[in-house]
Amino acid sequence: MSAGLGGRRVLVVGAGGFIGRHVVSGLVAAQAKVTALDLAAPKRIPNGVVEWVTGNVSDESVVAAASAGQDAVVYLASNSLPASANHDLAEEINSHVRATVKAAEICEASGVDLFLFASSGGTVYGLEADEPLVEDSPTRPRNAYGVSKLAIEHYLRLIGVLRHMKTVSLRIANPYGEGQRSHRSQGVVAAAMQHSIEGTAMPIWGDGSVVRDFVYVGDVAEAFVAACGYEGPSTVINIGSGAGVTLLDIIRLVETATGRPIRLDFEPDRPIDVRRNVLDIRRAARHLSWTPKVSLESGIAATAGWWLRRLPAD
Amino acid sequence: MSAGLGGRRVLVVGAGGFIGRHVVSGLVAAQAKVTALDLAAPKRIPNGVVEWVTGNVSDESVVAAASAGQDAVVYLASNSLPASANHDLAEEINSHVRATVKAAEICEASGVDLFLFASSGGTVYGLEADEPLVEDSPTRPRNAYGVSKLAIEHYLRLIGVLRHMKTVSLRIANPYGEGQRSHRSQGVVAAAMQHSIEGTAMPIWGDGSVVRDFVYVGDVAEAFVAACGYEGPSTVINIGSGAGVTLLDIIRLVETATGRPIRLDFEPDRPIDVRRNVLDIRRAARHLSWTPKVSLESGIAATAGWWLRRLPAD
Repeated sequence: MSAGLGGRRVLVVGAGGFIGRHVVSGLVAAQAKVTALDLAAPKRIPNGVVEWVTGNVSDESVVAAASAGQDAVVYLASNSLPASANHDLAEEINSHVRATVKAAEICEASGVDLFLFASSGGTVYGLEADEPLVEDSPTRPRNAYGVSKLAIEHYLRLIGVLRHMKTVSLRIANPYGEGQRSHRSQGVVAAAMQHSIEGTAMPIWGDGSVVRDFVYVGDVAEAFVAACGYEGPSTVINIGSGAGVTLLDIIRLVETATGRPIRLDFEPDRPIDVRRNVLDIRRAARHLSWTPKVSLESGIAATAGWWLRRLPAD
Repeated sequence: MSAGLGGRRVLVVGAGGFIGRHVVSGLVAAQAKVTALDLAAPKRIPNGVVEWVTGNVSDESVVAAASAGQDAVVYLASNSLPASANHDLAEEINSHVRATVKAAEICEASGVDLFLFASSGGTVYGLEADEPLVEDSPTRPRNAYGVSKLAIEHYLRLIGVLRHMKTVSLRIANPYGEGQRSHRSQGVVAAAMQHSIEGTAMPIWGDGSVVRDFVYVGDVAEAFVAACGYEGPSTVINIGSGAGVTLLDIIRLVETATGRPIRLDFEPDRPIDVRRNVLDIRRAARHLSWTPKVSLESGIAATAGWWLRRLPAD
C-alpha cells in the first residue's frame, strides 16, 4: 500500500526487535535502502538489507557511523521496560530519555532529514476518555515508561523546531503479532498465546473489562513505511486500530484461534491502570494516508499460527 | 499572611539563589525550622536558619544527609540556563532532569512528606492564549529549559502517584525583585535595571509588545511558604500575578522607578518567543489560599531601590 520509497536510505535502529523486523520487511518491500542496527545480528540477514550493523545505541560512535548518509531514521530501540522503569526514575531518565535524545542529536549532526520515533499511545495519555484520544488530548502518563516516552517526544519536537531535522513520533497503541515475546510483560496477546498453549493460568488484574486498542504489527510497520515519506512539519501521530476491545474479548479471540482454553486467575485491580485507552487515528489517515488493514480476527489468527508453528521446538 | 509552620522542618535547596533567599526569609518568619543547602554559604547566615549546608545537589550523599529528618523540601536548584540548554539536549537532560528527579527520589527515601518544585509558568505552556493559562492548558514548551521543567513535573507527579511523598510543582511566571541578577539573561526587570543604571542600550527582540506575567519575588516566597502547609493531592499550581503587561510597559516602569531613561536597541523578532504568556492563578487561591500582594509599581520601586543602593560599590 505504501508509496514506493525508491532509493531512500533508511536506518532502522532496533531492527532485530518485534516491531523492527516487521518494519525492515516493509521498508525492503517499498524499495528503501535499509541499514539495520541492533545489539546482535540475526542468524540470517533479511533479504534486501544493505547492511546489518551490530552495536549498542548508547555507543555514540556506533550511531554516528550508522546514521551517516541516511535520509531517514526509524528509532525503535528502547532501553526501558514498563515493569521496571518505575523503581529507579533517575536511571530510567539516563538510559531511556537521555540515550534516545542523544541518538537523535547525533543523527541530526549526521545530516539525517527525518527521525521517526516509536512512542506509546498506550501509555502517554494516561487518562480516561470515553471518546478515542486525539493527539492533542491531555497527557498524564501513569508510569515511568509513559512519562519517558512523552519527555522524548517533547525533546524531539524541540529538535524539529530549533534544528534542521524533522521529527515524527508515532504513538503506537497496543501492538501484537508474530514475533512478540511474552516474557517481558509487554503484550497481552503474546501472554494469552503462551498461557493458552502451555495450559498455565493467566493472571488478570480486575475483571478483564478494561478496554484497549490493539493494532497488528504489520499495520504498524506500514505506518513507519508511510512515515518515511512524510513531508509535513514535525508532529505526533496516533497509530492504532481506532477501536476498543476488552481484555476478555482478546482472551476469547486467542482461545478461538489456538483452539485451547485459557485458565484465568483474577487478581485485585491495579489502581494505576486506566479503564479505557482507544486512539483516534484520523491524523494518520490525513498525514500518512495510512489506515490499518488487518482485522483483529485475522491478526490474532496469524499470530496464533506463528505460536503453534513454534511447537514443540520452543 | 501565611499560616504558621510552627516547628515544621523544611530544607531549602538552592537557598542562596534569587528566589531561595526570599523563601528562607519567608519560612523563618512563618516559624519553620529551616535548613539551607547551596553551593556556597553566604557571608552571614540569615537569622533563624538552623543549619546552612554547603554542597552540590548532584552529590547524592549531600542530598541524603540534608534531607534526613525534614518534613518538606523546597527545591529551587537548577543546573539549567535557558540560554544554553538548547545546544546540548542530552547534557541538559542529564544535569537538569535526571539530577532533579534523583534528588527527589533521595528525599522520598529519606522520609520527606512533601516536595515542592520550582517549575516555570513562563516556559512550560509555550503556546499562545488570549485568556490566562490554566494548569490544564496544553503544554508545548519552545525551549529545552521548558521541556525539562515539564519532564521533571511529570516524573514528580508520578512519584506522587506511586510513592509515599507528595509532590507539588509551582509554575512560576516571570519573577522579579531584589537580588535578581541580570547577567544570566533570565530577568527582563533586572536587565532593564542594569541598562537604566549603566546607561547602556538594551536589546529588545521585536517591537516590545510581547505580553508577560511578572510576579514579585516576595509573593513567590509567600507561595512556597503557603505550599509548605499544603495537604491536598500532588498537583501543579500556577504562581503569577494573573495580569499581563508588555515589555515596553515594564521598561517604562523601570525608567520611572530609577529616574533614568533606557535606550532601546530593537532587534528582529525571535520566532520562538510566544506573543503572550499570562497565568490564571485561581488554583493557587483555592489550594494555597495564596494571592499576590505586591503591585507591579511597588515591586519595581522596591527593586529599583535595591539596585540604586548597590551604587557605586558594585
